[in-house]
Amino acid sequence: MPPDFDTNMKFKFSILALFLEVIVIVLYGIFVDYDPDPSSMLYPRNHSSQSLHRCVFPSDFQDVHVMIFVGFGFLMTFLKKYGFSSVGFNMLIAAFGLQWGILVQGFWHMERGKISVNIESMINADFSTATALISFGALLGKTSPIQMLILTLLEITMFACNEHLVTQVFKATDVGASMTIHAFGAYFGLAAAFVLYRPGLTNKHENDESTYHSDMFAMIGNFNSAIADAQVTAIINTYYSLAACTVVTFALSSLVDKRGKFSMVLIQNATLAGGVAVGTCADLEIHPFSAMFIGVIAGMVSVLGFQFLTPVMASKLKIQDTCGVHNLHGLPGILGGIAGIIVTAVKTEMRNGHMLTPALQAAALGSTLGIAIVGGALTGAILKLPFLGQVSDQNCFDDSAYWEVPEEETIPEIYSRHHEEHSRFEAAM
Amino acid sequence: MPPDFDTNMKFKFSILALFLEVIVIVLYGIFVDYDPDPSSMLYPRNHSSQSLHRCVFPSDFQDVHVMIFVGFGFLMTFLKKYGFSSVGFNMLIAAFGLQWGILVQGFWHMERGKISVNIESMINADFSTATALISFGALLGKTSPIQMLILTLLEITMFACNEHLVTQVFKATDVGASMTIHAFGAYFGLAAAFVLYRPGLTNKHENDESTYHSDMFAMIGNFNSAIADAQVTAIINTYYSLAACTVVTFALSSLVDKRGKFSMVLIQNATLAGGVAVGTCADLEIHPFSAMFIGVIAGMVSVLGFQFLTPVMASKLKIQDTCGVHNLHGLPGILGGIAGIIVTAVKTEMRNGHMLTPALQAAALGSTLGIAIVGGALTGAILKLPFLGQVSDQNCFDDSAYWEVPEEETIPEIYSRHHEEHSRFEAAM
Amino acid sequence: MPPDFDTNMKFKFSILALFLEVIVIVLYGIFVDYDPDPSSMLYPRNHSSQSLHRCVFPSDFQDVHVMIFVGFGFLMTFLKKYGFSSVGFNMLIAAFGLQWGILVQGFWHMERGKISVNIESMINADFSTATALISFGALLGKTSPIQMLILTLLEITMFACNEHLVTQVFKATDVGASMTIHAFGAYFGLAAAFVLYRPGLTNKHENDESTYHSDMFAMIGNFNSAIADAQVTAIINTYYSLAACTVVTFALSSLVDKRGKFSMVLIQNATLAGGVAVGTCADLEIHPFSAMFIGVIAGMVSVLGFQFLTPVMASKLKIQDTCGVHNLHGLPGILGGIAGIIVTAVKTEMRNGHMLTPALQAAALGSTLGIAIVGGALTGAILKLPFLGQVSDQNCFDDSAYWEVPEEETIPEIYSRHHEEHSRFEAAM
Repeated sequence: MPPDFDTNMKFKFSILALFLEVIVIVLYGIFVDYDPDPSSMLYPRNHSSQSLHRCVFPSDFQDVHVMIFVGFGFLMTFLKKYGFSSVGFNMLIAAFGLQWGILVQGFWHMERGKISVNIESMINADFSTATALISFGALLGKTSPIQMLILTLLEITMFACNEHLVTQVFKATDVGASMTIHAFGAYFGLAAAFVLYRPGLTNKHENDESTYHSDMFAMIGNFNSAIADAQVTAIINTYYSLAACTVVTFALSSLVDKRGKFSMVLIQNATLAGGVAVGTCADLEIHPFSAMFIGVIAGMVSVLGFQFLTPVMASKLKIQDTCGVHNLHGLPGILGGIAGIIVTAVKTEMRNGHMLTPALQAAALGSTLGIAIVGGALTGAILKLPFLGQVSDQNCFDDSAYWEVPEEETIPEIYSRHHEEHSRFEAAM
Repeated sequence: MPPDFDTNMKFKFSILALFLEVIVIVLYGIFVDYDPDPSSMLYPRNHSSQSLHRCVFPSDFQDVHVMIFVGFGFLMTFLKKYGFSSVGFNMLIAAFGLQWGILVQGFWHMERGKISVNIESMINADFSTATALISFGALLGKTSPIQMLILTLLEITMFACNEHLVTQVFKATDVGASMTIHAFGAYFGLAAAFVLYRPGLTNKHENDESTYHSDMFAMIGNFNSAIADAQVTAIINTYYSLAACTVVTFALSSLVDKRGKFSMVLIQNATLAGGVAVGTCADLEIHPFSAMFIGVIAGMVSVLGFQFLTPVMASKLKIQDTCGVHNLHGLPGILGGIAGIIVTAVKTEMRNGHMLTPALQAAALGSTLGIAIVGGALTGAILKLPFLGQVSDQNCFDDSAYWEVPEEETIPEIYSRHHEEHSRFEAAM
Repeated sequence: MPPDFDTNMKFKFSILALFLEVIVIVLYGIFVDYDPDPSSMLYPRNHSSQSLHRCVFPSDFQDVHVMIFVGFGFLMTFLKKYGFSSVGFNMLIAAFGLQWGILVQGFWHMERGKISVNIESMINADFSTATALISFGALLGKTSPIQMLILTLLEITMFACNEHLVTQVFKATDVGASMTIHAFGAYFGLAAAFVLYRPGLTNKHENDESTYHSDMFAMIGNFNSAIADAQVTAIINTYYSLAACTVVTFALSSLVDKRGKFSMVLIQNATLAGGVAVGTCADLEIHPFSAMFIGVIAGMVSVLGFQFLTPVMASKLKIQDTCGVHNLHGLPGILGGIAGIIVTAVKTEMRNGHMLTPALQAAALGSTLGIAIVGGALTGAILKLPFLGQVSDQNCFDDSAYWEVPEEETIPEIYSRHHEEHSRFEAAM
């Protein structure tokens, strides 16, 4: 067992969490109310281009919500000793983020000093939370819950500004949020990881490994994250992009391994890249085979990124990306943005009576990357403040720094000692 | 491995289960038929106030159904050697309960000697089963499947009587079933646990512990149990209550631990308390910040209950509550009932043309607690009958009493013996 | 650890997978387009009798899709060392199968040389994939991913022909696909298993065993596979058949065990048999108690099949059925077909203006079994071709033949060696 480590989290974390919750409740009391128009709750007005052609059923909301609340968390449970933190902090970030998201997103659409809550705005708040969860993936194992609460607060605020810019100022399309959520969350997290670089973790940390069962838990994350969009063309395009991406990921995973074997972490992540990359164009009639083509490119980019780019980023660029979010969200997100530029250049596409142009799509991609990188770096600098309970290098990737952990959890460690003895014993014979 | 224990369950359990199934099929043949009005299958008539403003989609039914069938079971898998029983007996109780629930609930609404089956009555039957599953949580590890079948039969019958009283006689509101399901199930189970008190389990049983992986499985239970209601105001209120409750639970979980660490069992359970407590008022326009306030109180009550009340109940009041259902369902259920009384006192709320009054809400809460406690105690006394295959103290919390268990399951035990040797070995050096 | 085994899969698998994906994309470019009639996307025309009375919501599609993509896979994770392959190859088969299914199913409904894609045809493609996943269950642990891709290609093609015969030529009813999916998939897989018989596996393979945690993962498969149909009568019938089947399965599982204990594998599988068997008649008004009766028979057939038939099939008939798909899909599928014959003989049932007759229902059952057995045997013969990377007997049921597996996975093995020592040690004292 690691030496008993005191994060001094007891009062700091509790006070910060309670303080933020009180602030939020007061702001809700002043600014938030139910949507007065009941029909708009089920059939949303076109506040944002994000939900333009969508008829939202409550069950769609529940699918999205469950994905945010626990699905993302299970995708991160591959680390052998960090399952509690992956799932637990995911819940904490989601619970705070969705309350905060309504406020900062609603700020841009206030009517008579009030922010209306309906199914649509709740779905958008859930999605805003996804950016913080993606950034959490890059920082996984290296940040305290105090730091994650602050990151959530700052990132969702900046996300809401960028989203307003993209959808209201540039009037760009990004229905599946390749840019505004996936690329934004990834580059925000990577910029923060760069600032929070830990030279002590240059060598592979002993806890930065998966186990057979932790990998199986991580597959559960795949359950609800595959598809969460209700518009028919978007479903068709996402479905084919994901399917083609999955086949290509299997083929390349075998191809890049020296013995031709599959890698579970690659499969878990890269199979979802197709869904990310098709996002920007999801509701455009790009033809199913184009969606499949986007999925194929996304699978290739993602596999090659995991295999070759992530190690180089850690060693040369000082960016330690625990979950490889650059490969699942960053690169496929940019790919989605580029696909949007190409499609709007080739075809004439209308939205709310104005034409989509490649220039404005490119502006949307640029502003997203710029705000994410600058915002992430600033946030990383704030998180470096010494009183925020940063964990020591030695206790990274270890639940026991923050959780009461049952004793049996140490089997693998004991086992390996036993295993050594055993091997030495056999060697001696 | 425990000494081979014969529960003599072979014929007793099989005969009882087959006998009950035959009875049920015969009663269905005589009394049950499809609802003759097809439209009512999707858009239910207002049989009970329970589903008043609800438009039920088949997919809602499936969400509820999956939650009942397996979600509850996974929430109880935290015990290290009782995962098969938690999930398996949950399925058994659900499968029998939902057949029985239609009969005893439908008994109060018969038309021309027939009980109609439609989506609404199936959802209500699923919910009735939840009471037995909550009571199962209090008794977890200490009862045989024979006893659980009998408890299911009796509890659902009494539940249907109390629900009739609450919704038809008192005409009280309880849309999210804080009182009729959560408080009823909890106090029924606690009363039974009191009668079935086992002095031999006063000291912590060696199997009454969680493991790292069993805790991870228990988080899966959270997947589908978060939200299962289709009406928009109810979704909004439940969503904010859950979110605020989660943040507060994290803060308090750290605060009550002497080293400031989180407890997984607390987080798993207490984060759901906000959903329970907001139930009674879920469809009232109480304003989102009131819902958040209810969630905050529920989180506080639940954490403090787990930390301080449950140990005292076991040692002083002779109530051994394995899963702590008192903290997740009992106290938050009462809290929900009280919130209903307060809201109806402060605001004028109408239901089906009559006014909701605090007096009738209080009567509903009182009748629920009274019937649950008396019914649970009576049921506990019946379950004490010697021929019902009660398990010995030694075999409590152990799947191998009822299940064929693969050998590897004993690793932790072997490991700990090995560990001791190892430690002694190290100590000797 | 097993001797390092080279399946020579590196180039073979990757080339085949990429080749198939390119072919599929080219065929989509030529033949496939979005459905030009947008309303048909949500409210499908009556292309096939399969979806006759169904109003399809996008969320139904997502339920089905998730079930196919990962639910089936988790049901097969009971083997102690084959969890990665069970879930991973399930995804691979699903990803390729659903692309291929649209093409071969759409081939029978082309209009002006184009195959239309809408929600309905995507659900049907998902279902077509289920046949290959069921066959995968029979062959689990004994085939390479190269073989499974070829099997998927061939089986889905033959499935589409048989489905056309059943629904368009015989105009038989099979709404829940007892025959066309469950029986077809099972007997196709069993015929292939017969041809691929491995005499070396006659004795129980050391890896052909479950563990406590693998059994728990397998229960997750139950989550989404219980109910996936949107029509109300079908939901009611399936619900009661499943419930009655579950109770009977528990009773019989205890009855057939010499000490009266439950078997987790039996419960996992047999509880679903009721849903399979009621499929053919699911949308007929057969009365709830008939549905329960079908469930009871299905539970009995399934338990007795697992306990007595599967061992005999392996030893006498040379059919090695790893998951026991004969008991979950084969026998209950035939039972469903027979129930359809009986119901159409007893009651007058109309479909699209023509009457359902027992003779045509019987023809549908016969053609399904015939095509499945002949097609499966032919496919098995093709899979025997030596260059398809068949795994050696010794490496059957072992993820490490195809996957990079984390080290801790070998605990059970080490443990058992340790356990033996320990036991010998104790015996010596």
